[in-house]
Amino acid sequence: MILSALLTSVAINLGLCFIFFTLYSILRKQPGNIIVYAPRLVSQGQLQEGAKFNSESSLPTAGWVRRAWEPSDDEFISTAGLDAFVFIRIFVFSLKVFTFAGIVGTLILLPINYMGTGIRDNSDFQNKSLDSFSISNVNNGSHGLWVHFCAAYVFTGVVCIFLYYEYAYIASKRIACFYSSKPQPHQFTILVRGIPVPPGGTCNEAVEQFFMEYHPSDYHSHSVVRRSSKLQILVTDGERLYKRLTQLKHKDNSPQRHRRDGILGIFGHKVDMLDHYEKSLGNIADNVRIEQSSMAGKEVPAAFVSFKSRYGAAIALNMQEGINPTHWITEQAPEPHDVYWPFFSVTFIRRWFSKLVAYVACNALTILFLIPVALVQGLTHLDQLETMFPSLRSILRLKLVSQVITGYLPILILQAFLSFVPAIMIMLSSLQGYISWSRIQKSACNKVLWFTIWNIFFANVLSGSAIYRLNYLLEPKEFPRVLAEAVPAQASFFMAYIVAFGWTNVASELFQLIPLCYNYANRVFGGDSSKDFEAPSIPYHMEIPRIVFFGLLGVTYFILAPLMLPFLLVYFCLGYIIYRNQLLYVYVPKFETGGEFWPTVHNYTIFSLVLMQIIVIGIFGLKKLPVASGLTLPLPIVTLLFNEYCQKRFFPIFQAFPAECLIKKDRQDQNDPNMSEFYDKLNKAYNDPALMPIKYSGRFSSRRYPLLGSSESKTNSRESSSDSSSEDMIV
Amino acid sequence: MILSALLTSVAINLGLCFIFFTLYSILRKQPGNIIVYAPRLVSQGQLQEGAKFNSESSLPTAGWVRRAWEPSDDEFISTAGLDAFVFIRIFVFSLKVFTFAGIVGTLILLPINYMGTGIRDNSDFQNKSLDSFSISNVNNGSHGLWVHFCAAYVFTGVVCIFLYYEYAYIASKRIACFYSSKPQPHQFTILVRGIPVPPGGTCNEAVEQFFMEYHPSDYHSHSVVRRSSKLQILVTDGERLYKRLTQLKHKDNSPQRHRRDGILGIFGHKVDMLDHYEKSLGNIADNVRIEQSSMAGKEVPAAFVSFKSRYGAAIALNMQEGINPTHWITEQAPEPHDVYWPFFSVTFIRRWFSKLVAYVACNALTILFLIPVALVQGLTHLDQLETMFPSLRSILRLKLVSQVITGYLPILILQAFLSFVPAIMIMLSSLQGYISWSRIQKSACNKVLWFTIWNIFFANVLSGSAIYRLNYLLEPKEFPRVLAEAVPAQASFFMAYIVAFGWTNVASELFQLIPLCYNYANRVFGGDSSKDFEAPSIPYHMEIPRIVFFGLLGVTYFILAPLMLPFLLVYFCLGYIIYRNQLLYVYVPKFETGGEFWPTVHNYTIFSLVLMQIIVIGIFGLKKLPVASGLTLPLPIVTLLFNEYCQKRFFPIFQAFPAECLIKKDRQDQNDPNMSEFYDKLNKAYNDPALMPIKYSGRFSSRRYPLLGSSESKTNSRESSSDSSSEDMIV
Repeated sequence: MILSALLTSVAINLGLCFIFFTLYSILRKQPGNIIVYAPRLVSQGQLQEGAKFNSESSLPTAGWVRRAWEPSDDEFISTAGLDAFVFIRIFVFSLKVFTFAGIVGTLILLPINYMGTGIRDNSDFQNKSLDSFSISNVNNGSHGLWVHFCAAYVFTGVVCIFLYYEYAYIASKRIACFYSSKPQPHQFTILVRGIPVPPGGTCNEAVEQFFMEYHPSDYHSHSVVRRSSKLQILVTDGERLYKRLTQLKHKDNSPQRHRRDGILGIFGHKVDMLDHYEKSLGNIADNVRIEQSSMAGKEVPAAFVSFKSRYGAAIALNMQEGINPTHWITEQAPEPHDVYWPFFSVTFIRRWFSKLVAYVACNALTILFLIPVALVQGLTHLDQLETMFPSLRSILRLKLVSQVITGYLPILILQAFLSFVPAIMIMLSSLQGYISWSRIQKSACNKVLWFTIWNIFFANVLSGSAIYRLNYLLEPKEFPRVLAEAVPAQASFFMAYIVAFGWTNVASELFQLIPLCYNYANRVFGGDSSKDFEAPSIPYHMEIPRIVFFGLLGVTYFILAPLMLPFLLVYFCLGYIIYRNQLLYVYVPKFETGGEFWPTVHNYTIFSLVLMQIIVIGIFGLKKLPVASGLTLPLPIVTLLFNEYCQKRFFPIFQAFPAECLIKKDRQDQNDPNMSEFYDKLNKAYNDPALMPIKYSGRFSSRRYPLLGSSESKTNSRESSSDSSSEDMIV
Repeated sequence: MILSALLTSVAINLGLCFIFFTLYSILRKQPGNIIVYAPRLVSQGQLQEGAKFNSESSLPTAGWVRRAWEPSDDEFISTAGLDAFVFIRIFVFSLKVFTFAGIVGTLILLPINYMGTGIRDNSDFQNKSLDSFSISNVNNGSHGLWVHFCAAYVFTGVVCIFLYYEYAYIASKRIACFYSSKPQPHQFTILVRGIPVPPGGTCNEAVEQFFMEYHPSDYHSHSVVRRSSKLQILVTDGERLYKRLTQLKHKDNSPQRHRRDGILGIFGHKVDMLDHYEKSLGNIADNVRIEQSSMAGKEVPAAFVSFKSRYGAAIALNMQEGINPTHWITEQAPEPHDVYWPFFSVTFIRRWFSKLVAYVACNALTILFLIPVALVQGLTHLDQLETMFPSLRSILRLKLVSQVITGYLPILILQAFLSFVPAIMIMLSSLQGYISWSRIQKSACNKVLWFTIWNIFFANVLSGSAIYRLNYLLEPKEFPRVLAEAVPAQASFFMAYIVAFGWTNVASELFQLIPLCYNYANRVFGGDSSKDFEAPSIPYHMEIPRIVFFGLLGVTYFILAPLMLPFLLVYFCLGYIIYRNQLLYVYVPKFETGGEFWPTVHNYTIFSLVLMQIIVIGIFGLKKLPVASGLTLPLPIVTLLFNEYCQKRFFPIFQAFPAECLIKKDRQDQNDPNMSEFYDKLNKAYNDPALMPIKYSGRFSSRRYPLLGSSESKTNSRESSSDSSSEDMIV
C-alpha cells in the first residue's frame, strides 16, 4: 500500500467520524431519542421518557464531551460500577503506553527507518510505499538497529511498570469497592454441589443437617436448586402472552383485536383475540401451578447456602467439607440475578458432553474462519480480481476505486464475518457449564480474544505473505524467523484496519445506529412499548477483545512500523471519551464482577510483549545482527518472570477477598441496624425465579397454590414480620 | 540369554538367599546382635541390650516368619505407623496384581508364545533362548495375538479395580488413624511466612497483633523462627566434643587420654586430652551463649503459629490472610522433630539459586548416568570384551564364567553405581527448599523413581538394542514402534535383574550385613556406645522406587514376556514378609506423614499401565495386526481418565483433612482432661533446638543466660505451673 492510499482511507474515515459526531450532537437533544442516548437515566428514573435531555440549543455542540470527561474516578465507579471503570482503565493504560511509544517511535525510530535504503523506492513522497517507514527499510547490519534494540528494552520496562501500577491500582479499587459496598447476598452465599442425599431423605434435610452440625454459628439459610427448565419455558410463554394481552386491552377496539383462527389468520372463523389469549393464559397458569407443585421431586443435589457473615461463607468455601472430596463441593455464589439457571437443569452426562462439543466447535470455528480471511486477503491483490472479473477491469483501474478496494473493502468484509463470532462464542461458553452469566461472558471474552488474535493477526500475517509457512510456524526454532519475515509486510494492512475499522467503530458506538432506527420504527409503527423498556448492558466479550487486539497491534508494531502509533493514539483517545459517555448514559451493568476482567487484559498485554520480543529476535537475525538477536533473548524470560510475580502478587485478590477484608467488613456490619432486614431478604435471594408465584395467577385461576419458594428456605434468625414483597406479586 | 544361564543365576541367588536366611535365624538369637536385629525394641525400652531376644533354641528356625506374619493390620499400624503400613501395602497390592497376572500369563499367554515359530530356535529345551517364551516368538498376524489383546484389556481393568480399592482403603485408614491419634502439635500449628514487619516493630509483635486481631478465638501461641545456622554448627560441635569427653572419662587412664599436640598427634608436647577438651568445650559453650543472646536480631519473617483447635489451624491455613497475597503465606507445619531448620537460615535469593542448581544437577546426573549404563550393557556382548582383553579369551569361553558375566556381573556393577544415587537425590532435594525432612524424602523418592525408570528401564532398553533410537523416541508418533522393537529384546536382562538383584536385595535387607559388621567391630574395638545408640529409620526414598520399579517391570512385561512373573512373585512374597519383620523389629519411624507416599505409588502404577499399553499398541503394529493396534488406542485414554477420577476422589484427603474430621476430632478433645497440659507443651514445641539451653552449659561456665526460647512463645492460656522439661536440660 502506498502513502496516498492510506491518506485516502484516513480522509474517508475522518469524514465519517465527523458526520457521526455532528449527527449525534443534534439527535441526542431530540426528546424522542432519549431512550437511545440516555436509556440509563430513563431506566433509573432520573429522566422521563420524551423529556428534554438538557437545555442546550439544538445546534451541534461538544458539551457531551465535557460531561463525559468531568466525573472523577470515584464518581465514575459509584455511577457505572467497577467493571465499567476497569473497562475505561484499559483505554487509560493504552493511552499511557502508546503516548510513550508514539514519542519514541515517531521521533527516534521513524527517522532511522526512513533514512535506510533497504527498499529501493525512488517514487515521490506521496507514492512512497508505507514499507519505507518500517524496519524493512533499514539496511542489513546497520548500527541504527541498536537503537531499535534499546527501544525494545526500554519499551518492555515501561510497559511492565505501567502494568504493575495498573494492576495495583485496580486491586486497591477492588478492595475499596468491597469496603464501601452494602451487604449483598452473594457475599454471604456459596453454592454447594454434590450433596450426598441419604436414602429416604431429601436434599433439603441433608443440607440443613450438615451445616447445622459443622457450621452451627455461621449457617443462616439455604435454598435447594430444582430442575426447572420446563417450568421456565412455561413461565416465559405466559409472560409473553400476558404482555400481549395487556397491550390489546389498552387499545380497545383496535383492528388487531379480532382475527380469523385459520391458517395465517386469514381463513376460518373470526375470533375475539382477547378471549382467546385469556383462555390460553389460564391454561398456562394452571400448567405452571401443576409443574410448580411437582417440583419437590425434581431436586438437584445442589443448594445455595447462606451464612451470617462473609467470613463464615469464605471459611465454608475454602475448606474441604466432607470426607469424600467429590461431595459438598463449594463454589462462590454469583449475584442472584446473575445465576444461569438452565445450568442446573442439565444432567451431569449432558454437561460433560456439551463441554466436549463446545471445545470441538470452538476449535473448528477458529480453523474454518481461515477461509473468509484468505478470500479477503485476495482483495488486496487487485490483479487477481482483474483476472477473475475481466469486465470490471476499467473500473478497477480507476485510482480511487483501487484505493478504496485495497484500503477499505477487505476490512469491511472481514468485519461482517467477525460480527457473528461473539454471539457464537457466548453460545459455546454457555454450553460449557458455567453457573453465572458473568462467568459465561468472561469465558466468551477469552475465546473471542484468542479467535481475534489467531484469525486476524496470525492468519492475515501468514496467509497474506505465504500460508505454507504455517508448517514452519509449528517448529518453535523457526518461529521468530517466520514471524520476522511476515509481520512487517502486513503493517500497511493493519494501519488501514485501525483507521477504517477502529475509528468508525467507536464513532458508530456513539451514534447507536441500530437502536436509533429501532426506536424510530417503534414510534412510527409500534405502540407504547415503554413498559417493557430495558436499558442495554455493555457486551464486554465483544468490546474488550477489540481494544486488547488494538493494543496487541500497537505493541508488536512499535518497533517494526512506528507510523501506526499516531493512528492508534487517535483511536484510544476517541474510545476513552466515547465509552466514558456511553457507560455513564447508555449502558446499565447487568452484573458486577468487581473488576475481574483486568487479569485477562494483563495477561494478553504480556502475551503481546512476548510476541513483540520474539519478532524482534527474528528481525535482528534477518538483519544480520546476531549479537543483538542473542542479547534480546533474556527479555521474554524476564517478562514472563515479571508476569509470574504479578500473578502471585495480585491475582489472588481477584479470585477471593482475603480474611482481613472480610472480617473488617463483617465487624462494620455488626453495628448496622439494617442487617436483620438484609438477613430476611437473604432467605429468598436465591430462589429460582421460575418457582416464584406468577403475576397473572390470581386473575386467571381461582385456586391458590402454596408458595413453593418460601417453604424452601429455612432461617435461623427470626422471621421477618411482613412478607410484603412476595405478597405483592400475587395479584 | 539362554534358559540355562537364567537357571544358573536363579540357582546362585536361591543359594545366597538360603544362606542369608539361615545365618539370620542363627545370628538374631545371639544376645550381642540384638541392637542389629531388634534395635526398635531396644530403643523403646522393651528389651535390654544384650538380653536374649526369645527363648527358642539357637538352631535355625522360621519362627520370625510367623511373628512377622501374625499382627493384624490395625496392630501393625499401631506399632509401626501408617507410613510403614502403606509401605507394606505396596507389596500386598503387587502380590494381588501379579498373582492374577501370573496365572493369566503362565497358563494362557506363555503357551501361546512358546507355540509360535517367530524365532527359529531349534536348540534343545535347555539351550533355548528366553525369547522363545516372549511375544517375539508369536508369528506375524497370528490369531493368538487377540488373546494378548484381551489380556491387555482385562489386566488394565483388574489393576484399575485394585488401585481404586487400595486408594480407598488407605484413605480410610488415614482418616481412622487421624481419629484415633492423640493431639499432636503439628495438627494445631501452621507455618506462616512473608510476615510484614512494620518499621520499628519486631516480627514477634506483628504476628501476635495480626492473629489476635483476626483469629481471636482460635489463636494460641507462636514462635518466630531465627537464622541459626552458625549456632547449629556450634551446638553440634559442642555435642560431639561433650560425647568424646564423657567417653574419655568413663575409661580412665586409657592410652587415648594423652596425645601429642603436633601434626597428626605424633610430634609436639604431650597434652592431657581431658583438659584440652574441657577447655575447648568451655569456649564453645561461651560462644553458643553469645550467639544465642544475639539471636534477637536474626529474626526470619516466618513463624510457627499454634491454634487452640485443629479446625482453627485449618481455617488459617486455607484462607488468604492479608490483602497482599505475598504476605502471611500459610503452610501446614510438619511435626516438630521433622522440621528442616537449615531451610530458614538461607536467604530468599540463595534458596532460589539453589533450587535452580538442584534442578540442573538432577538432570545432569540423569544424563551422565547413561555412561555406566552403556558400559554395563557392553558386558552382555561378550565378543566385545574378548576383543578388548584378548588374554582373557580362554577364561571367557568357559561356560560358567560366561554365564556369570552375562547373567550377573552387569547388574552388580550397575547396582554399585546406583547405590550412590539416593544419597545424592536427598542432598539435591534438601537444596530445593523444603521445610521438613519428610517432604525432602518425598521429593527425593520421586527423583529416584524417575532416575530409575529413565536410567534402568529406558537406557537399558534403548542402549541395549540401539542408542541411536533416542532420536526416534523424541518423535511421539514413533514412540510405540521403537519401544515395541526394543522392550521385548531386553526381557532376559530384566529377568536376570529381578533374580540377581531383587532377591538378594531383600535377603540382605533381612541379614543387615553392614550394621552387623559395625556392631561386631564396635564390640571388639570400641567401648560402650549404648548411650548414643539410635535405631535406624527406613529410607523410603531408596526402598519405594525399587519396589515400584519392579512393579513397572511386571506390568510392562506381563504381555511381552510372562515368564518374568513367577520370579517377580517370589520377590514380592519375600519382600512382604521380610519388610514386615524389619518394620516391626528394626526400623523406628522418624516422621509420620499419614500415608502420603501412596499417591506416588498410585501415579507410577498408572504410568506403568500406560507404558504397557503404548508398547502393546506398537507390538500389534509390528506383528501386522493393525486392527488390534487401533482397538487398543482407547485403553490409555480410559486409564488416564480413571486416574483423573482417582485424583479428584482421593488425593485431597492426602493433602489435608476435611472440616468434618477436624471438627469431630476437636469436639472429642473438648472432654479430654489432658488438653491443658498439651497446650502448655504446644508453646514450646516449635522452638529451634539450637536455641535451647545447652546440656553442658552449667558445668563449663559460671554465667547463666536467659532462656531465649521460652521468652519467645506467648500464650493466651494459663501458663504451665512447672517448667520441668526445660529446667532438666540445664545440668
